[in-house]
Amino acid sequence: MNFKKRILPVAVLSTVALGSLFGSFSNDGALAKEKKENNAEIKNVIFLIGDGMGVSYTSAYRYMKDNPQTKEVEKTEFDKYLVGQQKTYPEDPHQNVTDSASAATAMSAGVKTYNAAIGVDNDGSRVKTVLEAAKENGKSTGLVATSEITHATPSSYGAHDVNRKNMNAIADDYYDEMIKGGHKIDVMLGGGLSNFVREDRDLTKEFKKDGYSYVTNKEEMLKDTNSRTLGLFAPGGMPKMIDREDSMPSLKDMTNTALKKLGKDKDGFFLMVEGSQIDWAGHDNDIVAAMSEMQDFENAYKAAIEFAKKDKHTLVIATADHSTGGYSIGARGDYNWHGAPIAAAKRTPDFMAEQIAKGADVEQTLKSYSGLELKPEELESVKKAAESKKVLDIDNAIEGIYDTRSVTGWTTGGHTGEDVNVYAYGPGSDMFAGNIENTDQAKNIFNILKKRK
Amino acid sequence: MNFKKRILPVAVLSTVALGSLFGSFSNDGALAKEKKENNAEIKNVIFLIGDGMGVSYTSAYRYMKDNPQTKEVEKTEFDKYLVGQQKTYPEDPHQNVTDSASAATAMSAGVKTYNAAIGVDNDGSRVKTVLEAAKENGKSTGLVATSEITHATPSSYGAHDVNRKNMNAIADDYYDEMIKGGHKIDVMLGGGLSNFVREDRDLTKEFKKDGYSYVTNKEEMLKDTNSRTLGLFAPGGMPKMIDREDSMPSLKDMTNTALKKLGKDKDGFFLMVEGSQIDWAGHDNDIVAAMSEMQDFENAYKAAIEFAKKDKHTLVIATADHSTGGYSIGARGDYNWHGAPIAAAKRTPDFMAEQIAKGADVEQTLKSYSGLELKPEELESVKKAAESKKVLDIDNAIEGIYDTRSVTGWTTGGHTGEDVNVYAYGPGSDMFAGNIENTDQAKNIFNILKKRK
Repeated sequence: MNFKKRILPVAVLSTVALGSLFGSFSNDGALAKEKKENNAEIKNVIFLIGDGMGVSYTSAYRYMKDNPQTKEVEKTEFDKYLVGQQKTYPEDPHQNVTDSASAATAMSAGVKTYNAAIGVDNDGSRVKTVLEAAKENGKSTGLVATSEITHATPSSYGAHDVNRKNMNAIADDYYDEMIKGGHKIDVMLGGGLSNFVREDRDLTKEFKKDGYSYVTNKEEMLKDTNSRTLGLFAPGGMPKMIDREDSMPSLKDMTNTALKKLGKDKDGFFLMVEGSQIDWAGHDNDIVAAMSEMQDFENAYKAAIEFAKKDKHTLVIATADHSTGGYSIGARGDYNWHGAPIAAAKRTPDFMAEQIAKGADVEQTLKSYSGLELKPEELESVKKAAESKKVLDIDNAIEGIYDTRSVTGWTTGGHTGEDVNVYAYGPGSDMFAGNIENTDQAKNIFNILKKRK
Repeated sequence: MNFKKRILPVAVLSTVALGSLFGSFSNDGALAKEKKENNAEIKNVIFLIGDGMGVSYTSAYRYMKDNPQTKEVEKTEFDKYLVGQQKTYPEDPHQNVTDSASAATAMSAGVKTYNAAIGVDNDGSRVKTVLEAAKENGKSTGLVATSEITHATPSSYGAHDVNRKNMNAIADDYYDEMIKGGHKIDVMLGGGLSNFVREDRDLTKEFKKDGYSYVTNKEEMLKDTNSRTLGLFAPGGMPKMIDREDSMPSLKDMTNTALKKLGKDKDGFFLMVEGSQIDWAGHDNDIVAAMSEMQDFENAYKAAIEFAKKDKHTLVIATADHSTGGYSIGARGDYNWHGAPIAAAKRTPDFMAEQIAKGADVEQTLKSYSGLELKPEELESVKKAAESKKVLDIDNAIEGIYDTRSVTGWTTGGHTGEDVNVYAYGPGSDMFAGNIENTDQAKNIFNILKKRK
């Protein structure tokens, strides 16, 4: 069929001129619709951070979840909305691979700073965060995490401190720092009870006095109808998803609760949700825990996307602050990686190691929780480690079994510096496309908030 | 133009029609211009593959090249055109981390296949490649690589073989397999002389007889004005960029030469360019060689982009087939990665090790080529390794110095399975955005070629 070629000059003209005029009548319809949706008014921003969620983690998670009955590998929720990557380097005089505090401050305030900085710049000066700007704009605000809610990532949105370690002072900030005469965070859900209830101060009582609900388990959280809520579900970080009791909310439960409360505000909201412990699992070089936390985070991300699809005025960004562990899919010369042994685990190696260190039988514990038919030499490796009675030794031995079986590699107990993925859905999502700076996350959100003033 | 779409609601119609009409006068101007450019006719496709170029490599390369005098980290050429990532898994009964042959066949023919497959599917049946389809469409075609031009990646575009190891048979394919009575590849530039000039056959003579130029060094290549050229610059793979003699062309030189020749065809062209040895450096866990090859590949990529910017009808895609080595930016608990020691190297560790194994003085060789002021213990480590007179031992010792100084980590001598980046510029680039399958690369190009029929 040479017809198209013969009229080439005209065809080019029509593609360009008529194509623009009549875009909706051609196959550009989808693009036009997409563009219109991208230009809708942005009322709400949900910003999700998978702490430590490097490219290897999102890829491995997809392969672990793959349905082996189908020929194609199914997309994860993240895959559907990939728009680019961000650079994570900090501005620290001594380190050029970021920590979570510096990265979160870059994303919350648009400022590169030193590792450990919580909402302060390199001079230690406070910098305004997008959560604070949203509150100034009359929006509702929320923080959700599975770490202490005062941990590096959430606190970089809701507090200011020269050091991330000062989690009591950060909890104080959440209460003491006022915007327009009110508390700046309407919904706080996560771990970190011990930073709120202390000898010197009980912030849960202070928040309650000011009209907040205070909840400590899933049932209380779901029943609560207050628009302002403090929910603290563990003394420190919450257990990993696969170790969690039913009485404890999932990250998805907390996210849905926050969305229900914040979504009532006709002026809109800003919500930060962190999958906090993908990183902790990476530090521990624990692929079972890492994939558990990926699942928890994906479920929460899906809840955010579903909210945004209904609402049509909600921008959803998901990204990572950095990658952790130098984790690789495949290792030691083997051209394979297996998700099945990881998916089989019923509890994390940490959980199993703690039981064993407390005196539980090695074989019985592994039989109950590992999900694996252990080979004699695998069982022996844990028994030998258990002689020391040290949780860490036993944990490492159990992790070794999963590493070997899944062909997982690690290079570090710390962070790594490669770019991390950025996922965006909803109006304004094209602002986040391509290779961006982590500081652009905040700059874009500040710009969105400015338009609303 | 189809009628049924004309009954779209008026609201949509006005947004689209007026939005397009007046797009260039609003703040959507840039987007409208971009969309117009994306819809231009596609005459030429340049497909660049950084073999083994995982996310850690592109990120590390940026940080190594960074100008420390400026506050911002400068973007690489790649960074400017990031549109998403691709999934690399093969369809192999024994391995789920891909090799270069399977990945290249996915990208060239749109078919997932087994590791080692060159342009054949899982049954060993030949599958048509985009290079072949382009030739059938009357376009010119070219392959450029720093490996043997018969190596896994280029051969998956221009040949068919059940095993990548059959490089002589692959060279035969390049000559023997005809399309419309002519050879299917107009320009072949790279290494692999020994696969063309053999006891049983001298393909260089056969190509010359049929009107091809045959060149073996940079000068000859640059002087040659023939539109069909075979250029073979090394018996096997070409030396790494920093080890290369001036008489040898760079990947950029070869790319520009190919573009000059192929660009003459008013029917357009398909050109595949491979930065072949990023992967080889990764297998060797050699960060110096890896960054050398990244530089060579970026220069070639930049040349392709410059051609496309002038031409306006050229689509440029760059991606990787997989990552290699489990390479990490930062390792062993250190939150740093340093590019300076790597950038200082004047030759690869391989080059230095070979000199030393041949009897060159350790201290003098390292002084001449390492670019480093060596500490006594570093010098000692190489001297000790040199006692064995084995290149591999000496190489590993020298690599160890760069790994330690740069804080580089590795988990494998093989490949890893995480997603790799996709960069796209020019008309049609939006087809490659988001998270795609490596087979989508071929499918998209087949679709582009179909439109031209």
